[in-house]
Amino acid sequence: MILTVTLNTALDITHRVRALRPHTSHRVTEVTERPGGKGVNVARVLAALGHEVTVTGFVGGATGRSVREGLADVPELVDALVPVGGPTRRTIAVVDELSGDTTQLNEPGPTVTPTEWQAFQEAYEVLVPSVRAVALCGSLPPGVPVGAYAGLVRTAKAAGVPVLLDTSGEALRRGVAARPDLVKPNADELAELTGSHEPSRATQDARRRGARAVVASLGARGLLAVTPEGRWRATPPAHIHGNPTGAGDSAVAGLLSGLVEQLPWPDRLARAAALSAATVLAPVAGEFDRAAYEELVGRIAVTAEVSAA
Amino acid sequence: MILTVTLNTALDITHRVRALRPHTSHRVTEVTERPGGKGVNVARVLAALGHEVTVTGFVGGATGRSVREGLADVPELVDALVPVGGPTRRTIAVVDELSGDTTQLNEPGPTVTPTEWQAFQEAYEVLVPSVRAVALCGSLPPGVPVGAYAGLVRTAKAAGVPVLLDTSGEALRRGVAARPDLVKPNADELAELTGSHEPSRATQDARRRGARAVVASLGARGLLAVTPEGRWRATPPAHIHGNPTGAGDSAVAGLLSGLVEQLPWPDRLARAAALSAATVLAPVAGEFDRAAYEELVGRIAVTAEVSAA
Repeated sequence: MILTVTLNTALDITHRVRALRPHTSHRVTEVTERPGGKGVNVARVLAALGHEVTVTGFVGGATGRSVREGLADVPELVDALVPVGGPTRRTIAVVDELSGDTTQLNEPGPTVTPTEWQAFQEAYEVLVPSVRAVALCGSLPPGVPVGAYAGLVRTAKAAGVPVLLDTSGEALRRGVAARPDLVKPNADELAELTGSHEPSRATQDARRRGARAVVASLGARGLLAVTPEGRWRATPPAHIHGNPTGAGDSAVAGLLSGLVEQLPWPDRLARAAALSAATVLAPVAGEFDRAAYEELVGRIAVTAEVSAA
Repeated sequence: MILTVTLNTALDITHRVRALRPHTSHRVTEVTERPGGKGVNVARVLAALGHEVTVTGFVGGATGRSVREGLADVPELVDALVPVGGPTRRTIAVVDELSGDTTQLNEPGPTVTPTEWQAFQEAYEVLVPSVRAVALCGSLPPGVPVGAYAGLVRTAKAAGVPVLLDTSGEALRRGVAARPDLVKPNADELAELTGSHEPSRATQDARRRGARAVVASLGARGLLAVTPEGRWRATPPAHIHGNPTGAGDSAVAGLLSGLVEQLPWPDRLARAAALSAATVLAPVAGEFDRAAYEELVGRIAVTAEVSAA
């Protein structure tokens, strides 16, 4: 069992319109919705890879009920979400049929009270000892203290459970200092954390700040991993065209599944890079193309790098 | 008791953003939501005027549950909505904080099956004989036959209950032919029905097509009424600035409440015009400003017009 934490779950809604024109009225031609938030997305990919996953975080209101109903449709997922008084946020992706371009509207999420935050931490402490890995994913909803992830990292480490952190900004900075086993920043998050736009230098710096291992997702340039066991770069065979939504979450799922399967680092990275590319290629944002994944996973070039340190 | 029918109910969501820019990501700073669809809006205004109202139409899915929860908060409203398999549509109004301009996204609504349409008609036949007036409001969801309103008008007339129709396009054309007591088209709907952009001529023509009385809502120019008892024009005292969303629904509520209170036509029209103007003036779209209404209702100029026929 793997545990993913999504403190700011979402109901992800996609609206197709002919072309979005501000200050006019639009007929939505197609509506799709599904549970979202980074940890939920990671859990869905882990389930598709055959892993059993427990999903926790906060959920509330009518949108929260829709999230829970959507999760109930995936048999490999266990719903351990903690109720919150405010409604789970909606995200709305408005896709232009003509250009394929997307306009995003993100609600802020419910304000979590101190009592609700306390209830979550207690639920998390009960869940952690029985799982093989924990992923802490995404932004913090209003009301959750900015040091939240640092505390959740410490709880996992105290229980001897490996913990991955995928967030940004101050929540990442504080979380890294609590010494998680793995962080997976993208190029922007890494630069914000370290002040360096040079990925090799920045990943080294992120390790010095406390992360045991760092896997940076660099978009079309693939993954750069700096670990106690060595440094690798994982590169897809050619430039992959498509929608990058969810590619980072798929990479997290690849890394976590490889961790619990005790794969060597190069195999974990090949899986993560192939899942990420297969997500970019999928017609539906955030899903991955299984045939593309199976075809790509053997074609990811994983090369060891000589340490600059 | 008054009955309002909203076959395509909605969950109306308002998102405030700084400024909508297509193909970028936006943080929504404020979210509000409430039950919507024209007949629901009419019912809310009637309730605010102290009338008891039964709301019917279709409702389904998680959005439908939110609509029902919102209606339950208004003690004067009785929920007689009929369940449907598909989810109630959302409408999203994205309001720019900088300009105040609104971008509208309207989902299509659930596809109603023949069995569901039959169930609605049976429920409607049970409700109609015990009410003092019926309002049939808004667009038809997918699956409901275009002649739907004509049938609902005939059922009300057979029960001896006055019926108001407020819709557009072919649904209005077919509905008018079934001889409703009153139709309330706006200038565009009237022109589409009659082919004439001259309101005086067009309202006459709408009566010839079957409506016993026609009250055209002409925006800032107020209301034009053509009835068997006479012709009137109701004009607000000055140009009213604000958001016209829901102004037509408030006019319908004014006309219906005046009908069941057996007010003379000039008083009904003054009330409808004042409610309409007080809705334009209200800070929240679709609500009316009660103080403005009470101040305006005595200042609406209602003038009899000499028939051109």
